[in-house]
Amino acid sequence: MSKNPVSNSVIRRLPRYYRFLGELEKHGTVRISSRELSEKMGLTASQIRQDFNCFGGFGQQGYGYNVSELRSKIGNILGVNTGNPAILIGAGNLGRAIASHMDFNERGFRLIGIFDSNPNLAGSMIGELAVRNSLELEQFCIENSPVAAVLCIPKESAAEIAVRLESYGIRAFWNFSHYDLRADHSDIIVENVHLGDSLMTLSYGLNSK
Amino acid sequence: MSKNPVSNSVIRRLPRYYRFLGELEKHGTVRISSRELSEKMGLTASQIRQDFNCFGGFGQQGYGYNVSELRSKIGNILGVNTGNPAILIGAGNLGRAIASHMDFNERGFRLIGIFDSNPNLAGSMIGELAVRNSLELEQFCIENSPVAAVLCIPKESAAEIAVRLESYGIRAFWNFSHYDLRADHSDIIVENVHLGDSLMTLSYGLNSK
Repeated sequence: MSKNPVSNSVIRRLPRYYRFLGELEKHGTVRISSRELSEKMGLTASQIRQDFNCFGGFGQQGYGYNVSELRSKIGNILGVNTGNPAILIGAGNLGRAIASHMDFNERGFRLIGIFDSNPNLAGSMIGELAVRNSLELEQFCIENSPVAAVLCIPKESAAEIAVRLESYGIRAFWNFSHYDLRADHSDIIVENVHLGDSLMTLSYGLNSK
Repeated sequence: MSKNPVSNSVIRRLPRYYRFLGELEKHGTVRISSRELSEKMGLTASQIRQDFNCFGGFGQQGYGYNVSELRSKIGNILGVNTGNPAILIGAGNLGRAIASHMDFNERGFRLIGIFDSNPNLAGSMIGELAVRNSLELEQFCIENSPVAAVLCIPKESAAEIAVRLESYGIRAFWNFSHYDLRADHSDIIVENVHLGDSLMTLSYGLNSK
């Protein structure tokens, strides 16, 4: 999208902006100043202007931001309507929760397949998708060309499956496995989720009060 | 713990340090320089020293850090062994995944109760805990004094239950509900989990390549 690489911390704020603007839109807010937006989000107004300038800037001097317009622009940058085909690996508790709980469609993806190595799970339904045996992975990828994979498997299984998935054309991983994908696969896009880090941050909060 | 309030970004890095040091320990690394640690973590060495200085500094000039010692010190700051009693609200897919998937004990908490408002779920087992009817919440809190609650319920139910939980003595929330707890409860400790933000960041990665 942009010519210069945008810093990671700016990128991480984009979904938050998108979420906050969605709330504002839902409550009927038509426009907002960078000051108001910054107060709501706990950032400084200049920080917000700097962030938006990475993408050419969205404001209008003296008017502030049109909420719907800004939300849709940030949504486009995030690619929320891209519908990239994705598969999910591991239909345990976590995989089930992610598959049934997440609005993939509103966040840039289309979940088109769920796989598990346990043959007893094959055929069981999660939402509108039937779990498939992992043996079908290659054939499925040839026929449906998914580009992203959600890894809801233990760390021990992740290394082997990541190699296979990359060879089947998967370029992006949403990684719940705690396996350090980036160490062995430099060309892929990885988003790691470490729920344990979040829980320890809460523990710090209690512990430091 | 510390006298001056430590910045949020430093606090958020502590669990990552703790995790990386655990990996190093597992692989038998006894000591590490701040330069090596910084390369592994994608930070600068001076950033790491600054972070640790917030807690009095842990290194020894010319020696670097003793991995086990550093890990245990950071663990103490995070309160990983505190075992604060916690309850989980909402035994749907997500609640089940969190309750069975997370090592609460190694991250500062003890999960002592799971509640759901659906009476049909009462009595069903998640790990070693039987799901309880939400009607029992008050009595349970009086008898067991949990201090933290994990909210795995829809946004719509969160406002009402948060008020109740606070009146029962809950001071910390691990919040998966997307309800903005802080807006109505200023005195509590909140850690929000927005999995959707993480997924949109992955979408950005695909979209900007």
